[in-house]
Amino acid sequence: MSETKQLANYLVTSKIEDIPDDVRHEARRSIVNFLGCALGGSHEAAMDLTMRALGPYSGPPTARVLGRSQRFDPLHASLLNGISSHVHDYDDTTPKNYIHPTSPVASALFAYASHSIVSGQDLMHAFILGFEAESRVGNAVFPSHYDVGWHITGTAGVFGAAAAIGRLLGLSEQQMVWNLGLAATQAAGIREMFGSMAKSFHPGRSAQNGYAAALLAESGFTSGEHGIEGPRGFAAVQSAEFDLAKVTQNFGVDFDLRVNTYKPYPCGIVIHPTIDGAIQIHDAHHPSADSIKAVRLRVAPLVLDLCNQQQISEGLQGKFSVYHGAAIGLVRGKAGIQEYTNETVADPEVKRVREMATAVADPNVTEDQSHIEVELNDGTRLEHFVEKSLGNIHRPMTDRQLDEKFRNQALLALPAAQVERVIEKCWKIDELDDVNKLIRIAVPGEPEVASTH
Amino acid sequence: MSETKQLANYLVTSKIEDIPDDVRHEARRSIVNFLGCALGGSHEAAMDLTMRALGPYSGPPTARVLGRSQRFDPLHASLLNGISSHVHDYDDTTPKNYIHPTSPVASALFAYASHSIVSGQDLMHAFILGFEAESRVGNAVFPSHYDVGWHITGTAGVFGAAAAIGRLLGLSEQQMVWNLGLAATQAAGIREMFGSMAKSFHPGRSAQNGYAAALLAESGFTSGEHGIEGPRGFAAVQSAEFDLAKVTQNFGVDFDLRVNTYKPYPCGIVIHPTIDGAIQIHDAHHPSADSIKAVRLRVAPLVLDLCNQQQISEGLQGKFSVYHGAAIGLVRGKAGIQEYTNETVADPEVKRVREMATAVADPNVTEDQSHIEVELNDGTRLEHFVEKSLGNIHRPMTDRQLDEKFRNQALLALPAAQVERVIEKCWKIDELDDVNKLIRIAVPGEPEVASTH
Repeated sequence: MSETKQLANYLVTSKIEDIPDDVRHEARRSIVNFLGCALGGSHEAAMDLTMRALGPYSGPPTARVLGRSQRFDPLHASLLNGISSHVHDYDDTTPKNYIHPTSPVASALFAYASHSIVSGQDLMHAFILGFEAESRVGNAVFPSHYDVGWHITGTAGVFGAAAAIGRLLGLSEQQMVWNLGLAATQAAGIREMFGSMAKSFHPGRSAQNGYAAALLAESGFTSGEHGIEGPRGFAAVQSAEFDLAKVTQNFGVDFDLRVNTYKPYPCGIVIHPTIDGAIQIHDAHHPSADSIKAVRLRVAPLVLDLCNQQQISEGLQGKFSVYHGAAIGLVRGKAGIQEYTNETVADPEVKRVREMATAVADPNVTEDQSHIEVELNDGTRLEHFVEKSLGNIHRPMTDRQLDEKFRNQALLALPAAQVERVIEKCWKIDELDDVNKLIRIAVPGEPEVASTH
Repeated sequence: MSETKQLANYLVTSKIEDIPDDVRHEARRSIVNFLGCALGGSHEAAMDLTMRALGPYSGPPTARVLGRSQRFDPLHASLLNGISSHVHDYDDTTPKNYIHPTSPVASALFAYASHSIVSGQDLMHAFILGFEAESRVGNAVFPSHYDVGWHITGTAGVFGAAAAIGRLLGLSEQQMVWNLGLAATQAAGIREMFGSMAKSFHPGRSAQNGYAAALLAESGFTSGEHGIEGPRGFAAVQSAEFDLAKVTQNFGVDFDLRVNTYKPYPCGIVIHPTIDGAIQIHDAHHPSADSIKAVRLRVAPLVLDLCNQQQISEGLQGKFSVYHGAAIGLVRGKAGIQEYTNETVADPEVKRVREMATAVADPNVTEDQSHIEVELNDGTRLEHFVEKSLGNIHRPMTDRQLDEKFRNQALLALPAAQVERVIEKCWKIDELDDVNKLIRIAVPGEPEVASTH
């Protein structure tokens, strides 16, 4: 049986009862992380511009956009959720294939659920299956597909969105094959867009296009039967090397959700160990900014290749400055979205510490490590060596750390009390009889409706 | 200056006065051919299924679909025009890059014009520019891009639609650069879809996505600045070999419209010379079906590789049967859409002649040639050798032959009298102060409004 057909078969026959508990919990963590990112990015310029440009072409506004009061049709809502949840580059990553996996899948699912009634358990099951379809297709073509310049979050993402929505629509195996084919023939997104708004357009468009693929397949619109493995299919056309066995091996046993990781800080990942160490010194010693005489960093050489900017004036530049990372960790004890605004970059205390920091590249330090030494005016030396950076697969963020990350972002879109209600309900998403009980409180200006959940 | 920027500059600065007359006339021919194809395909199943699946997600129905009475938003209308105009594989081709060039560009333009007021001259100018952008981007990556399995009509087509709509929107050079970048990052469509409805989805989606790219760029949504030539841009990612000079050389002097070709018959192009010869024998001698004793074909070897089906029962199979091509040419003297229905395939006279035909592969016969010999019951032998097949760039269809092709298709959607009015107005499209004067009569059930043109 072809890989496309085997995958389709798995997607239509999987039972929620067969999903292990640890995978379900990782799905909850991914959804909490996603929802926080979507709220945090919901008021970015890329969102406003997309609404302005494409809003007039929206169908009946039956769907909600996370973090926004405006409504659109569910396809446009999928696009917008995808943009908001990726625009800060703060969403999850599976290091084995570089995909930001949750955004394309969950963006479509939340749009779908907001215009109909879907139970939390069904949504979670569809999410797990969509994540798996996307990640397996990505695994099959990684790394050569990524290396040549595809933004794999877009190209693999469309399979994930199609699979998840197709599952909720109850597609037959044949319809699911067509659905995967229609996803394959829309797989797009190139890395030349990095650094522009179009990067976040990729998970958005893949969510929207995967959703549309599922609708078309449901209606009987046909595609090629071998969208993934055919001689002119996705793998052969979009990757010089590929291993199709990775699409189909160990269905129901291996789940890539288990290797999902969450970013603690919204900046280049190579800066993360330095921020991590700086926060640990802050938390242990609380040195005041004006007590600091010197900050000495010893980091992996790649860090200085990528993030060696010291004289900066804009928040976006801060994302590529290891010195800024050290400074916000030491001065504020955190590195959330608010630490990457223009205001924070100009904050005199942050600026002073950033500008006194020095860094040396040490080939013995891995990209997951950092050594930080802080010398105080009284001669005290505070040292910390980060062996494994927070957020790494070997030192994952805890559920409570995900809560903190969530709050940090969600407060940009919702009042504090509402944020707490959203967090609480999001962790229990699979207990909801209707996901709208969560979605309704994840948009501004809509007080929670009394409910039994 | 980068290729993307040079192309953007040309697109925003070109003046209609600088377009040579022969190019304008070829644009008229391309639009007549496109409109006929769109009408001919407007009631195919792929259209009905798309309307059913995606219609509920359409925005305000301000745009018209050629050949249909239903209205949609202009993005969905672009998609639908693209499907209808390619679904019979009867639209134009530029043999130098295998693109079916008009469908992606004109599908978007007619949708745009139907929801606003655009003069025929402005539409034609935008069409010429969109065609040129699409074909030049295609030339730069052909043949390696096509050979690996991309359906170049989809991948290059999105640039054409974006360029054409961007021109009508009056984008600045910077906006046009973003527009081309947003096209580049949506370039999709793989050949694995050939033989399914998804093939016609490609020009449709490229029309829709190019249109959306232009709207986003107009709003200020940014993309990478080097969508075409960047190290992770369209050419490098989607083609093993490419020549970027082909994007930019001789702007305003070379026009690929001059090498556009039109299919006289809705079937595999290698069958065309045989049909052509059979029609010529029909027209010269009018042999009755029951007077025919034998039909002997001598054709290029590729013809029998691709189109050697003789025992057939469905219209679609007829498109890949050189025997069916000879039979309809001899019996009916034509090979229009009606000659590829299930009914025609089952027609006793057609079936009899088809089943008595024999074919031999001759390496001395080119793919553009065919030798046909008909032996009658009375011993008469009728022979014809086609040196250059009709529709070939060296023996283009005349304007009147395009009229006949148009009628053959348009009658599937419109009453005969209305068809004549549409043909007449379409040839004079650039004289219209509002293209809706043409579009309104290209949909069923809407009588022509009195007008000065």
